[in-house]
Amino acid sequence: MHTQYFQVSGALPLELGGRLPHPTLAYHTYGNPANPVVWVCHPLQAHSDVFEWWAGLFGPQDYFNPEQYYIVCANVVGSCFGSTGPLSENPNQGGAAYFHEFPQISIRDMAKAHDLLRIHLKINKIHLLIGAAMGGQQALEWAIQEPDTIQNLVLIATNARQSAWGIAFHESQRMAIEADITWRKNHLQAGEAGLRAALSIALLADRNYQAYHQFQTDQETLTGNFKAAVYQQKQSEKRSRSLNAFSYYTLSQAMDTHHVGRNRESIAAALSEIHATTLVIGISSDTLFPTAEQHFIAEKIPGAIYREVLSDYGHDGFLTETSRLKHLIRIFLDGTVGNKLAAIVNLES
Amino acid sequence: MHTQYFQVSGALPLELGGRLPHPTLAYHTYGNPANPVVWVCHPLQAHSDVFEWWAGLFGPQDYFNPEQYYIVCANVVGSCFGSTGPLSENPNQGGAAYFHEFPQISIRDMAKAHDLLRIHLKINKIHLLIGAAMGGQQALEWAIQEPDTIQNLVLIATNARQSAWGIAFHESQRMAIEADITWRKNHLQAGEAGLRAALSIALLADRNYQAYHQFQTDQETLTGNFKAAVYQQKQSEKRSRSLNAFSYYTLSQAMDTHHVGRNRESIAAALSEIHATTLVIGISSDTLFPTAEQHFIAEKIPGAIYREVLSDYGHDGFLTETSRLKHLIRIFLDGTVGNKLAAIVNLES
Repeated sequence: MHTQYFQVSGALPLELGGRLPHPTLAYHTYGNPANPVVWVCHPLQAHSDVFEWWAGLFGPQDYFNPEQYYIVCANVVGSCFGSTGPLSENPNQGGAAYFHEFPQISIRDMAKAHDLLRIHLKINKIHLLIGAAMGGQQALEWAIQEPDTIQNLVLIATNARQSAWGIAFHESQRMAIEADITWRKNHLQAGEAGLRAALSIALLADRNYQAYHQFQTDQETLTGNFKAAVYQQKQSEKRSRSLNAFSYYTLSQAMDTHHVGRNRESIAAALSEIHATTLVIGISSDTLFPTAEQHFIAEKIPGAIYREVLSDYGHDGFLTETSRLKHLIRIFLDGTVGNKLAAIVNLES
Repeated sequence: MHTQYFQVSGALPLELGGRLPHPTLAYHTYGNPANPVVWVCHPLQAHSDVFEWWAGLFGPQDYFNPEQYYIVCANVVGSCFGSTGPLSENPNQGGAAYFHEFPQISIRDMAKAHDLLRIHLKINKIHLLIGAAMGGQQALEWAIQEPDTIQNLVLIATNARQSAWGIAFHESQRMAIEADITWRKNHLQAGEAGLRAALSIALLADRNYQAYHQFQTDQETLTGNFKAAVYQQKQSEKRSRSLNAFSYYTLSQAMDTHHVGRNRESIAAALSEIHATTLVIGISSDTLFPTAEQHFIAEKIPGAIYREVLSDYGHDGFLTETSRLKHLIRIFLDGTVGNKLAAIVNLES
């Protein structure tokens, strides 16, 4: 499937100040627009080709397939995968990229941009809105902003407010990028070595002691070139090839400002405005978005159900445990078609 | 108490190759040499002034005080607190420092250097050898190397082999240092910004989600300058002032090579050679050296006892929970004076 592009005709006003003049949104659609709409919000390092990064859950032969659903995924503003971001042309700079002049983006801005694309695609009702991590943060904001558009909502390994722990991890990553003095330049490769260190830190946030113990322990007795060290080097190098330091910096800041209660009565009041039938899923070993955060969301969204996926992979479980996720989501959606959440309650309890 | 210095008359042969010609060892002693000897091995970021960094357990009015004990703590080779390290004069370079030419150090080398100082101080028996984290790694190696010198051994939040998780954290820290191109220079401040990012990562390894949630969560709704981010910046800047990137790099590598089974029959066989009466203490919320690692050590050292300290501070609990540590160590030492471990078994069970 190829990337499609939508250019917003006006400007996108930004929550934290400034505006993006006629931003471009890169997106993918799969299947027949007449099918029920499944809209996916992607996490920080991902993009709009959900068949690529969430295979096992989304794909031609997967639970969410183009035969049964009209699947849509839009790249967030600020990203480096086709939507307007720091390396896009800055209209005030006559052809040069924004680089360090790119404005601060919030999760609400991402949701607002998604909604503009939804209107452009003439979608009135979203049958299911689904997202994990930063994707879940967008899905929450969007479901609060447009309560009557979203019918069903699946939130995975996400939160209603970025945690101090999440901010501390991101700050360390930004410090690593800043330690690379090339980062100060207006250049496409600025901060590349810093970005690799930042991505190495992200690997730690996404897993845990147990997963490293199981998969990265040397069988031999070495004094260098440890498997775990090589893993950090190779994985972060591989991931850095498709990312850039500017977008990573921008999106990590967007996550850190995530707070559904900002300029609203409270977090609980904001969550209570959601009309969608909601399933909240936690990953048992997630240390970045621990299950207490999803318990909290499920308590505050009217009628929401909480379910847990058992996994040794930590936060990464949302990508690796697709068959367990599929199982929970299938029961949820089957149940909501008939008697709201009756089926999931009966089958799972 | 002032720092004392001992210069080894010959060379210290290094386990992983090369030698340190007549290295200097910086150390502190407190109290009367006629008192029972308590020898402390310090963790990565610390130094020989144990009254400064382990107050609450060590100090004029603390459990380990100079009235009752002869307390000794030596700065490890490779460190930046007085012992020979990367910024010491390289005898092959006519006055210039070693910088990047400093050889790779192992935990066994640190233990060997401690033993040279012990002989210099005419200490025949160490009543108690105690260490946490990298300090516990040295204490383990030393107790294996000199089984008849160490009478009692207290190992806190440490392991018999560096974990894949620990290596992955250190590799990310070294990547942050390397991302700072000033690191490549032979200069006292080389890699300073990278070191700050590395120390920010260390803060994450040493605590956990819960500790950040409790102490670093903003009460206001902010969109920048988050308490958790400011904490990372300030703490790592503060710590970086007394450290340097060269020593941090060297000591993190030393920890990564820690493996008491290397060139021995096995880890279990090495631990079984320890004669000291041993107490192993785990910190309940430690994610860097989880309690499973201390359970393992206690199982393999003949007659060793395992006890756990309840703490929300993660690995940092070994520094913050001094009153709980004191309680366990007091019972242990009282018990070992009379009837070996009888008292601790009775009082604690």
